[in-house]
Amino acid sequence: MNKHNFSAGPSILPQQVIEEASNDVKEWGSVGGLSLIEVSHRCKEFVEVVNESTQLIKELLDVPEHYEVLFLQGGASTQFCMVPYNFLKEGEKALYLDTGVWSTKAIKESNIFGDTEIIASSKDKNYNYIPKFNIDVDKHFHNVSYLHITTNNTIYGTQLYEDLDIDIPLIADMSSDIFSRKIDVSKYDLIYAGAQKNIGPAGVTIVIVNKYKLGRVSREIPTMLNYHTHIDKKSMFNTPPVFSIYCCLLTLRWLKENGGVDAIQKNNEYKSNLLYNEIDRNELFEGTTEKDCRSKMNVTFLLKDDKLEESFLKLCDDKGIVGIKGHRSVGGFRSSIYNAMSVESIEHLIKVMRDFEISHPII
Amino acid sequence: MNKHNFSAGPSILPQQVIEEASNDVKEWGSVGGLSLIEVSHRCKEFVEVVNESTQLIKELLDVPEHYEVLFLQGGASTQFCMVPYNFLKEGEKALYLDTGVWSTKAIKESNIFGDTEIIASSKDKNYNYIPKFNIDVDKHFHNVSYLHITTNNTIYGTQLYEDLDIDIPLIADMSSDIFSRKIDVSKYDLIYAGAQKNIGPAGVTIVIVNKYKLGRVSREIPTMLNYHTHIDKKSMFNTPPVFSIYCCLLTLRWLKENGGVDAIQKNNEYKSNLLYNEIDRNELFEGTTEKDCRSKMNVTFLLKDDKLEESFLKLCDDKGIVGIKGHRSVGGFRSSIYNAMSVESIEHLIKVMRDFEISHPII
Repeated sequence: MNKHNFSAGPSILPQQVIEEASNDVKEWGSVGGLSLIEVSHRCKEFVEVVNESTQLIKELLDVPEHYEVLFLQGGASTQFCMVPYNFLKEGEKALYLDTGVWSTKAIKESNIFGDTEIIASSKDKNYNYIPKFNIDVDKHFHNVSYLHITTNNTIYGTQLYEDLDIDIPLIADMSSDIFSRKIDVSKYDLIYAGAQKNIGPAGVTIVIVNKYKLGRVSREIPTMLNYHTHIDKKSMFNTPPVFSIYCCLLTLRWLKENGGVDAIQKNNEYKSNLLYNEIDRNELFEGTTEKDCRSKMNVTFLLKDDKLEESFLKLCDDKGIVGIKGHRSVGGFRSSIYNAMSVESIEHLIKVMRDFEISHPII
Repeated sequence: MNKHNFSAGPSILPQQVIEEASNDVKEWGSVGGLSLIEVSHRCKEFVEVVNESTQLIKELLDVPEHYEVLFLQGGASTQFCMVPYNFLKEGEKALYLDTGVWSTKAIKESNIFGDTEIIASSKDKNYNYIPKFNIDVDKHFHNVSYLHITTNNTIYGTQLYEDLDIDIPLIADMSSDIFSRKIDVSKYDLIYAGAQKNIGPAGVTIVIVNKYKLGRVSREIPTMLNYHTHIDKKSMFNTPPVFSIYCCLLTLRWLKENGGVDAIQKNNEYKSNLLYNEIDRNELFEGTTEKDCRSKMNVTFLLKDDKLEESFLKLCDDKGIVGIKGHRSVGGFRSSIYNAMSVESIEHLIKVMRDFEISHPII
């Protein structure tokens, strides 16, 4: 049976990426006679993979000249500590917008390195909205190292859809919405994203950093946690995660072939509208987040009658719908509809929701 | 043409691992209808991959009960800082045996965290031997956190083949010889190894740690750098490198099917003897390391007349021999003959060396 993969991450990848990756694990055409996963990362063919991936990221996101693109390991979780290690200057403070579990984990690491302030939080309503906030620039301007935000909150299904316009260095965890929409990279000093949503399989983290903003801290930074190390060695200080980076390249090529970020953004808006419209229309379901904060990547919703949950999950399973169970902290359902998710799969889910509505009339 | 892959890492993997990994990237049999690289790491099938891999490592290396097996990211290079972060107690010192580039990098990180002493070094002879050393236990016993060693030095082709018997906590970087020979895990408090030699593709690091020896330091450790984090969450604190771990499982199964560590050790001794015997016999070549320190994993050798180098490399290339150029800091040649390297490939290399000898008679 054809499966419809709504998993939150690792998650759906374009079918052509999967097929090409599979073939290249068997024998990598660029080298011949060897698998992709047994060649030296120093061979010219793999160096070219890193170069082309870097170039495509710069092109697709229109990255300014003075920014560096890095391929690191350890996921966003490692960035949570690398960010304050490299950016939280002694005697200054870091500001964080608290929009859920991932923000909270980032805040915990910042506290190890210095003064850390939560400027706003939506914890009061289980993070079902993006809190508004004002930064008192007069008060903060001279002693703030950065403001950290999480642009998309995978668990809760909220998204900060616009680039913030503030006078403080901005750092963003874009793990679950990078490449899904046009962004103005120049407004951020650092962007990071675990690959396993819109870019590739698990095992690599993309970092885009304004190199002129590094080097302000005095603390001694372990070599692997210092962004300079990876900039100087073009992500090859140590053995990089070859397979994961290669799959990122295949996905980036796919994105470019399909019209780049502008085209995918339109498609993502169309797809998420389709699904949210059904959630709002269908008598049995309701969304979990405030409407103006709805994520275009992770669509969270509930059955108004939670006794029907098991039955709906069973129907989804029968219909080849995978990974739709909501995170335990929200409950209900979550459809992760990343770039590679087809309109057809969303229409399939909508049909299943309608069939379920028909078979469960509200009397 | 059939290629003979002597690369130092990432390096040769068993052919059955490559074929199975390729198939499972296309569609993972355990799940059905989905690729291995697009399933959630929390699905029961992948949790079972981590469990079985852990179990196989414990079984193959006869790991004592109170040791934990972890699958981390960031390579041995990240362990260089995690080791002192977690083990170098305030007011104590760390001892390091300096046997090359990797030891030197580990020493650099230790210096960030506390008093670090090099107990012996072979730098005087470009690391072509393993230095002898005595630890004055009376002097050191009460203020030493650990002794760190690198059991196999990939670049120079030296190996510390016996487990040390000392009264100080022992930590070993076994990146390039783990699973190649029987070891007594109980003699070590921590063993770490980047996977990309004997275990799998790049992207995952195996750690085996005596959990009773953790928690002695007072400094605050970032969450991702704290071994306790990964012990508590069974290597699933954050999204693990799914593909790399899965390939490790396939390689561990292959190792068990082929008789485990005892059988592979005999095979590795046979293979390395074959090649060293040819190096010693052949009039044109000579080894680069002291004979009693020769690595059974990385066989380094030179042409006595270095003007012939290019011509020999050309012949190797013509004969399908890949990755044999020596590291720039040693020069000459390096044959990395890890577990998956066949006797046939070594015999092929030997034949090429003999042909080269015949076509270049010493007059």
